[in-house]
Amino acid sequence: ASVGDGYIGKGIRPALTLLSGKFYNYDFEKLLPMACSVELMHTATLVHDDAIDKSSVRRGHATINKLFGSDVAILMGDYLFSRAGEFVADTKNPRAIKLFSHTLGIISSGEINQYLSQFNIDQTFEDYVQRISGKTASLFALATETGGILSGAPEPAIDGLREYGMKMGIAFQIVDDILDFTSDQATLGKPVGSDLSQGTLTLPSMLLLKKYPDNNPVRAIFEEKGVNKPEKIKEAIVLLRQSGIVDECYRIAHDYCDRACAALDVLPSGSTSQEALRGLAAFVTARKD
Amino acid sequence: ASVGDGYIGKGIRPALTLLSGKFYNYDFEKLLPMACSVELMHTATLVHDDAIDKSSVRRGHATINKLFGSDVAILMGDYLFSRAGEFVADTKNPRAIKLFSHTLGIISSGEINQYLSQFNIDQTFEDYVQRISGKTASLFALATETGGILSGAPEPAIDGLREYGMKMGIAFQIVDDILDFTSDQATLGKPVGSDLSQGTLTLPSMLLLKKYPDNNPVRAIFEEKGVNKPEKIKEAIVLLRQSGIVDECYRIAHDYCDRACAALDVLPSGSTSQEALRGLAAFVTARKD
Repeated sequence: ASVGDGYIGKGIRPALTLLSGKFYNYDFEKLLPMACSVELMHTATLVHDDAIDKSSVRRGHATINKLFGSDVAILMGDYLFSRAGEFVADTKNPRAIKLFSHTLGIISSGEINQYLSQFNIDQTFEDYVQRISGKTASLFALATETGGILSGAPEPAIDGLREYGMKMGIAFQIVDDILDFTSDQATLGKPVGSDLSQGTLTLPSMLLLKKYPDNNPVRAIFEEKGVNKPEKIKEAIVLLRQSGIVDECYRIAHDYCDRACAALDVLPSGSTSQEALRGLAAFVTARKD
Repeated sequence: ASVGDGYIGKGIRPALTLLSGKFYNYDFEKLLPMACSVELMHTATLVHDDAIDKSSVRRGHATINKLFGSDVAILMGDYLFSRAGEFVADTKNPRAIKLFSHTLGIISSGEINQYLSQFNIDQTFEDYVQRISGKTASLFALATETGGILSGAPEPAIDGLREYGMKMGIAFQIVDDILDFTSDQATLGKPVGSDLSQGTLTLPSMLLLKKYPDNNPVRAIFEEKGVNKPEKIKEAIVLLRQSGIVDECYRIAHDYCDRACAALDVLPSGSTSQEALRGLAAFVTARKD
């Protein structure tokens, strides 16, 4: 294992760009730098996230802030943004470039929003969807929309691809938030219950709060001073597993995937890219890490 | 005073872009977003720098990290990068856009370099010039070079403008490093001697080390454990003022300014922009804050 291995993921986002670019004029010379750009922007945000959350492990590997301190992590993230920016510049497509920067603005203001709402228990489902749309789905939408733009897709097709990316991204983040409760540290590559520990209210904990208004461990973590956090997190995980809420969350994620796939109907049908994008949607809800 | 006032500077960088764009086809519609982009990139790097240096004051105002914590400062910096990126995208000029991202890469790797060489006393003048070229002068060069690019200047003129920006930026940083010793907190808007306190070796302290090999307060700050830093900083300031080194540093800064102005010779002469750029070079070495 080498430095930064924890930041190498499944490559879903660049795959989305390449697949989204296959419906019209598949221009690999432009799609490849775009795909690299999307993945590097993602990596840069992870490096900054880890510095902010003071996380020490990602995908079973030490984080940059753990290895070199948060100061180097800030600068390393900035450097990765610059490399992402160079790649998107290589597309020489002003619309894709503008969208890239615009998306970085949405992601960072989404992260500020999440930071400011930490340990705030009064959040609605709409707040949640808005928050994960900003911090996660907007990058999926950038990946798919630029695939359309760079392959000269007509506007309705570009709209469909963006919508697919948006809904896929929301489903992806919901599954991420479920796994934070239902997985284990070995599979996840980081401690379970991190969201609760950091005071980030996600869909499972929201539903838990609604279903058990009294003696709720989530409420205890968020509102009680001097609470034994690790114990309450364990309690929340046990309660969630017996509550039926996991299934409910998966149903909501599946619903977003269905809406993602429905958005593909405007694209040329019967192609292998259609199938691949639908397959990716199914993968997102089935994944275990 | 409102939040962020400490980040509003003299506007030298955007002025450089607008002036550099005046020699050929002055295209304000492209030069204005470029100038905004350069200034916002500068601001973003300041916000991240303050978070890294844990500075609490800038230009007499509280820093973002002081007001909201370093986590928000990281995200705020990222947001400012995104806005800078949107502005440069508005130029729709692939070369300027690529140069923008490339420069961000140089700045952030320059900052990593500075961070890694903190409290390292074995640095040569060449190391110093390379370091300040990366962290400061590269942005001045971006400002002037894009002025040339966006006004359709011929290649030798673009080269001249970049060279002017580079040398001006070096002179600017040398003066900055002098003022950190010779100014006072009220004028500077931050504590004097910050560089020494953070273990950043600058030109004045390098020359001080060379001139006084024995009992040197800079060496004490950098190498002695448990040293009384504020006292040694005061000592270094007194020693520097009586050493003649300040004049020597100014001579070096003036020399860079002269080389900056010489690079303008390839540009159409007798214009007001020539005069303005030469005037700016003079201003940079005469400035007090």
